[in-house]
Amino acid sequence: MTAPIRFVLVETSHPGNIGAVARSMKNMGLTDLVLVNPREFPHPEATARASGADDLLARARVVPTLEAAIEGCALVLATTARTREQHFRVHEAREAAARLVAEARSSASPAAVIFGTERYGLSNEHLLRAHALLRIPANPEYESLNLAMAAQLIAYEIRMAQRDAPVAAPRDAPLAAPEDMERLFRHLEEVMHEADFRDRTQSGTHLMGRIRRMFNRAELDVNEVNILRGILTAVQSKRRRAGSAQA
Amino acid sequence: MTAPIRFVLVETSHPGNIGAVARSMKNMGLTDLVLVNPREFPHPEATARASGADDLLARARVVPTLEAAIEGCALVLATTARTREQHFRVHEAREAAARLVAEARSSASPAAVIFGTERYGLSNEHLLRAHALLRIPANPEYESLNLAMAAQLIAYEIRMAQRDAPVAAPRDAPLAAPEDMERLFRHLEEVMHEADFRDRTQSGTHLMGRIRRMFNRAELDVNEVNILRGILTAVQSKRRRAGSAQA
Repeated sequence: MTAPIRFVLVETSHPGNIGAVARSMKNMGLTDLVLVNPREFPHPEATARASGADDLLARARVVPTLEAAIEGCALVLATTARTREQHFRVHEAREAAARLVAEARSSASPAAVIFGTERYGLSNEHLLRAHALLRIPANPEYESLNLAMAAQLIAYEIRMAQRDAPVAAPRDAPLAAPEDMERLFRHLEEVMHEADFRDRTQSGTHLMGRIRRMFNRAELDVNEVNILRGILTAVQSKRRRAGSAQA
Repeated sequence: MTAPIRFVLVETSHPGNIGAVARSMKNMGLTDLVLVNPREFPHPEATARASGADDLLARARVVPTLEAAIEGCALVLATTARTREQHFRVHEAREAAARLVAEARSSASPAAVIFGTERYGLSNEHLLRAHALLRIPANPEYESLNLAMAAQLIAYEIRMAQRDAPVAAPRDAPLAAPEDMERLFRHLEEVMHEADFRDRTQSGTHLMGRIRRMFNRAELDVNEVNILRGILTAVQSKRRRAGSAQA
């Protein structure tokens, strides 16, 4: 049971970079490429830069949202150039590669790495979909790796990890898929709303962001999500029964 | 005492690649770039691709031969895509980076990595200048990394090795510089000629190639080269004395 490791490119501006990423993936034996709302694709420049990796481009899936790109995935890592990011777990590329390989080996669901736009990287909204962040160690005085270079380094580390890594200890249950996490967050938000919960220190969206980071960091498996949702459902029906009793 | 690690680009065809290599070096904290007979340099495309690393380009030395580029260097590694190369020692990128860092740390002479042309890589003639070859492990079905990607991966491994590696055990004496090795080879060839040495299995140039690979693989230090040249000189004067006695 070995699932693929997927590269997800979010809103890439230059089609040439999509081609270069495809080439760097194929160089390292990766094949699963998903494009979220690319500015121009397919495009002759993408094909030119892909060189002999045009088969990867031909098979690449184009989807409208990051949600669709990571649906059904297990571990999701988001690339970042920032060195510190509050409330996120951050892995360096080598360690991240070892985790991706271990997850993909012990799972039927793909593990994914998300790459942002050339100019701005990933938005905070995007980062909230990831279990952890992936950072490439670089010269602090000049850290700006371009997209294709970053993809090449990460693909290389994945190949090295595939060769070197021991087989991971199996999980009790697979990691919860991103869509299950979304349902959990919506459920929790619903309960918070029904309970008229107001946090004094944080505004509404800010609060949900913190909650997402917290639960993503916990890397919940499907059983754990079911337990939490069971609790939320219990809370709701209790309140509703209480409500109707009062009426 | 820490010497720099130098990247040497041999006869690069596309100036854009020179810029991309400069950027990848700066990303990983390297600064010593030497260009052997580039087709076009300086060039606006090099500057464009270098992005914020134009200071490296401005400082890059342009020289006419590989010999000039590696003059005074200690360890010299040559990049290759070929998996097996007879009579050469081959290091994978990670191991090569560890060696380069260890050498540069314990030496006043730069360690160097040589990169060939985009199309043909390094010639056999070039490989004979190197102590060992450096290979990036890749998908055997699609190994062709482009020049800038290869430079990026090697620069990254050097950075990781600089951070992680213990300080190397000091050498007795520094590695012989390439020009000392050249003098040794010329001296040996002279002695072979004077002795009317003929190898039955190999033609003349082929034979010197094998001898070079053999001695490069031995990674001779300056003392060892002096010993060998002392032996050659002794052989020559012995023969000359014998010759004049006969005359």
